[in-house]
Amino acid sequence: RAALAFHSKFSSRSMASKTQVGFIGLGNMGKPMAKNLLKHGYPVIATDVFPESCKELQELGAQIVDNPAEVADQADRVVTMLPSSPNVIEVYTGPNGILKKVKKGSLLIDSSTIDPAVSKEMAVAAEKMGAVFMDAPVSGGVGAASSGKLTFMVGGVEEEFTAAQELLTCMGANVVYCGAVGTGQAAKICNNMLLAIGMIGTSETMNLGIRLGLDPKLLAKILNMSSGRCWSSDTYNPVPGVMEGVPSGNNYQGGFGTQLMAKDLGLAQTTATNTKTPVPLGSLAHQIYRMMCARGYSGKDFSSVFQFLREDEENEGQ
Amino acid sequence: RAALAFHSKFSSRSMASKTQVGFIGLGNMGKPMAKNLLKHGYPVIATDVFPESCKELQELGAQIVDNPAEVADQADRVVTMLPSSPNVIEVYTGPNGILKKVKKGSLLIDSSTIDPAVSKEMAVAAEKMGAVFMDAPVSGGVGAASSGKLTFMVGGVEEEFTAAQELLTCMGANVVYCGAVGTGQAAKICNNMLLAIGMIGTSETMNLGIRLGLDPKLLAKILNMSSGRCWSSDTYNPVPGVMEGVPSGNNYQGGFGTQLMAKDLGLAQTTATNTKTPVPLGSLAHQIYRMMCARGYSGKDFSSVFQFLREDEENEGQ
Amino acid sequence: RAALAFHSKFSSRSMASKTQVGFIGLGNMGKPMAKNLLKHGYPVIATDVFPESCKELQELGAQIVDNPAEVADQADRVVTMLPSSPNVIEVYTGPNGILKKVKKGSLLIDSSTIDPAVSKEMAVAAEKMGAVFMDAPVSGGVGAASSGKLTFMVGGVEEEFTAAQELLTCMGANVVYCGAVGTGQAAKICNNMLLAIGMIGTSETMNLGIRLGLDPKLLAKILNMSSGRCWSSDTYNPVPGVMEGVPSGNNYQGGFGTQLMAKDLGLAQTTATNTKTPVPLGSLAHQIYRMMCARGYSGKDFSSVFQFLREDEENEGQ
Amino acid sequence: RAALAFHSKFSSRSMASKTQVGFIGLGNMGKPMAKNLLKHGYPVIATDVFPESCKELQELGAQIVDNPAEVADQADRVVTMLPSSPNVIEVYTGPNGILKKVKKGSLLIDSSTIDPAVSKEMAVAAEKMGAVFMDAPVSGGVGAASSGKLTFMVGGVEEEFTAAQELLTCMGANVVYCGAVGTGQAAKICNNMLLAIGMIGTSETMNLGIRLGLDPKLLAKILNMSSGRCWSSDTYNPVPGVMEGVPSGNNYQGGFGTQLMAKDLGLAQTTATNTKTPVPLGSLAHQIYRMMCARGYSGKDFSSVFQFLREDEENEGQ
Repeated sequence: RAALAFHSKFSSRSMASKTQVGFIGLGNMGKPMAKNLLKHGYPVIATDVFPESCKELQELGAQIVDNPAEVADQADRVVTMLPSSPNVIEVYTGPNGILKKVKKGSLLIDSSTIDPAVSKEMAVAAEKMGAVFMDAPVSGGVGAASSGKLTFMVGGVEEEFTAAQELLTCMGANVVYCGAVGTGQAAKICNNMLLAIGMIGTSETMNLGIRLGLDPKLLAKILNMSSGRCWSSDTYNPVPGVMEGVPSGNNYQGGFGTQLMAKDLGLAQTTATNTKTPVPLGSLAHQIYRMMCARGYSGKDFSSVFQFLREDEENEGQ
Repeated sequence: RAALAFHSKFSSRSMASKTQVGFIGLGNMGKPMAKNLLKHGYPVIATDVFPESCKELQELGAQIVDNPAEVADQADRVVTMLPSSPNVIEVYTGPNGILKKVKKGSLLIDSSTIDPAVSKEMAVAAEKMGAVFMDAPVSGGVGAASSGKLTFMVGGVEEEFTAAQELLTCMGANVVYCGAVGTGQAAKICNNMLLAIGMIGTSETMNLGIRLGLDPKLLAKILNMSSGRCWSSDTYNPVPGVMEGVPSGNNYQGGFGTQLMAKDLGLAQTTATNTKTPVPLGSLAHQIYRMMCARGYSGKDFSSVFQFLREDEENEGQ
Repeated sequence: RAALAFHSKFSSRSMASKTQVGFIGLGNMGKPMAKNLLKHGYPVIATDVFPESCKELQELGAQIVDNPAEVADQADRVVTMLPSSPNVIEVYTGPNGILKKVKKGSLLIDSSTIDPAVSKEMAVAAEKMGAVFMDAPVSGGVGAASSGKLTFMVGGVEEEFTAAQELLTCMGANVVYCGAVGTGQAAKICNNMLLAIGMIGTSETMNLGIRLGLDPKLLAKILNMSSGRCWSSDTYNPVPGVMEGVPSGNNYQGGFGTQLMAKDLGLAQTTATNTKTPVPLGSLAHQIYRMMCARGYSGKDFSSVFQFLREDEENEGQ
Repeated sequence: RAALAFHSKFSSRSMASKTQVGFIGLGNMGKPMAKNLLKHGYPVIATDVFPESCKELQELGAQIVDNPAEVADQADRVVTMLPSSPNVIEVYTGPNGILKKVKKGSLLIDSSTIDPAVSKEMAVAAEKMGAVFMDAPVSGGVGAASSGKLTFMVGGVEEEFTAAQELLTCMGANVVYCGAVGTGQAAKICNNMLLAIGMIGTSETMNLGIRLGLDPKLLAKILNMSSGRCWSSDTYNPVPGVMEGVPSGNNYQGGFGTQLMAKDLGLAQTTATNTKTPVPLGSLAHQIYRMMCARGYSGKDFSSVFQFLREDEENEGQ
């Protein structure tokens, strides 16, 4: 039967734990993820376009090679963590890309956040070479990457999920199977679009309430016991002084940058356009984060939209 | 001392429980609220512009009079529950309004959802007659009104809150003090604006995810364990089949009508305009619910925005 | 017949040219308007809440009195030019308002830009005193007010239009009859809403085209010969260097301030909310001008939205 | 000198008028365009994926071949007119694509409306084969295509513009040089984005004015003599009865379909996202046309947004 045949086809690799794992992309997120693979006893073979990014990992015992093709030549399980769609296309299908030397039966897991249409293209290209591609974007930032507490949303053939899970649980606390290839990206993009809408909505609402004479802490409390409740109001409130331990209490430093949110909303917009799905609030949220980037907010946490919408004291009375 | 003096001034009335309570506005919400006052042993004296609305209450023992002035003439505690700002203005300051015959020291509680600026005007007008006005709009629909499970958000002088609470707890499960006059309205309006944003955002997101190949129940589960979580995703999901016991599972019958949401968003818009507060998503949410009203959705639950945004099957392929 | 009877009722006043004309509100717009009445030989009797605003007019021969009631006591034609609805309500119906001493048959012309619902209220109140109220808001700024080149959009009973026109042509180049009371305001508000939409749309479009490699002058030329053409693209282009003699060529100084546009869009929003009319782009335009006010653009010309949307050079690369 | 050398390189072809011209894509637009080439005496060699689309042209004397590669094999000037980016990529770079057999020095003109980034890719690919690619999207619909009155917006190397112009003037009344490859698309996309904004804005404004009591013809007249003026208000007014000879007078039949506008706005959105340009109104216009497609308006003229925003009579009173 098909499923069984399929399973046995790759059984030698998915059984083979603790053999070498490839890792491509050692940036802010990729480096701590690769470290966690090392911590769990996996030999790691890695590469990055910036050689200096590789040093720390090399000192920890990883083998560093020149390019993605060489990684794929030596490891039959490879994780990629890259900034955007063009990088993924290059790393997989470029002249020194993974698919140039990938072994039959290899498992390729991409944790980048990209257009799900690109994930599907990569899966087709991988399949032509006899390899399996899965998309597994993460939620949680650098902190969660370091502590191994990421959430992975995984798309790809269900028979390979167990094999992917074995590696991903070394780097994350939750590994959720979402469906066919691209659905991991879809889940990530959907969540972040709703997150952006909730954050801007919470910021508008808190600002309006304060202007109408409500105490911010009291307003947050009322929203959180009512139907206005959302993650941005009860866990990550954007108004300074309402909660502790969130970026709004620290001048919007740290957290999830406005520019990164704008990027994810751009992906949401693109997938919505391509599927002809109306997303009026998601689209406006994208534009607002884009305007914020144009006005100097790129590097601040995305909850700084509260500050962006609030009248500057120096402008009052005008 | 001021607070003390103030308190004693009204003490005779706020002590006097189980004396007559006035009730003006016996519509879908007002009637069950007045009934709950009767159930708790309060003699009720009531009026409504539609005489037929008074019959049931009269049969239950309430005294019916001709107009608000007569209610105020006989009761020193009066609750009003009216459709919109002009009705409130008429009932309080019109030729047969409450303030024509209100007794000194009376407590006037308005549970209508109206512009907080009107609440403040009414409070000033009441104070001139020696009476106290509080705004106490509710959340929860006809069901909560019947079962006495409403939430009241109360604005007004803090010294009178206890007196108001005595009556309101007969009709509601939660009575929250929000601050000065108008802040009850502010809290209600803010909550509903964020609710509308969350509902439209959830609908867009679920629709996009489904188009991208995600199973709706799985997507809801992922959102609800992530930062996209909100009341509309985890308690009142707008996608048919995802949850039970919500209007989306019953062809968007019952619940909170699109037209009522449009009204509340109009209030939010007006207060935002008057306070020069930017509310881009709140404003777009208002427009979307307004467009829905123009396209036949007035009477459906506000979660039907999912249906509104989704491509009709009959239109597919175009 | 009614119209005839009506006409004859007021004939003594509307014939009586060159008798005293009242003017209330001597601000940036009102002062040059009143001067133009003087230039045309009309004796002017005026007042303003700020005594210093009256000096220049007094030196030019106008009689200055203490309050609107006194103006109405001495003149049977009165023009008002005030900042907003509450001022109009005060000047007409306040304790020292026009209607306290207005003569029967007087013609009251309000050139303020306000909510048409307030115009209607004033007309009803004036009619009760036997006077006629017309709304006649202007387009054109301080320059047009000085040179007598304003456009007046006039609402009110048609029989009185000729009488109003006699005065308004002293102050404006175009006097357009729009219909019943309030339609002058409606026309003004509608025009400015579409103007704001066109200006923001032109700014987005020019910005996008420039980013895509088009020369701004060439793009403006193409738009202006095509279906994208609008007043903001062909007469008041917001991109510095594309046209001469417009605020974009002068660091957005002069012209029509962002804050004034935000005020007019607030009126458009309020009338749309009250009439349950969906205005999605008008509403978003309002929010964008509101955000600009919050970010220091209040005093700049409304075409500075181009600058607001454009990425700061200092923020590039982020 | 470079320009001269460049020019002479292609001189043999650009001189050679009345030699065979290739045409690929014989749909609603392409067929009348190809006919106009025949009328001007150019031998045409054509192909289309649907053989039946070729019959009429064949009867008129065109040579029909099997695929784009064969067209390019026999003609050194080729015009393409295709529905969307993927079709263009296939026709140029697919297994039977133009570039498989293109002759050195050929001139390839693409009149499709597509992402300018794809135009740039095609230009690079063509250059590798020694050919020149220009983008030349059109404005004007099927009528203008039939009567040879299209406007072409042309992007590409300036030295080749004269050669392109020679062919394009057979099919259009205006041929505008816009700049480097992709700027023709950019100009088209920018114009249509501003057009959509103007049309929705005009519809909202006319609807609001009518609700406020203004006569639609009078309101249009006022806008058109004021700063609210735009192509949609003065040339293509969306309100039935205001103008003659436009789709609003014919139940929104004919004209430019909502679905086509939604497609062009999708391209505008994608280019804005890719260049990180904020386009808040353009983005919302896209969403509104997308919602209209979801509600059965795909085939109606894009001015039907007036109807979409207007309250249905059957829904009134709700």
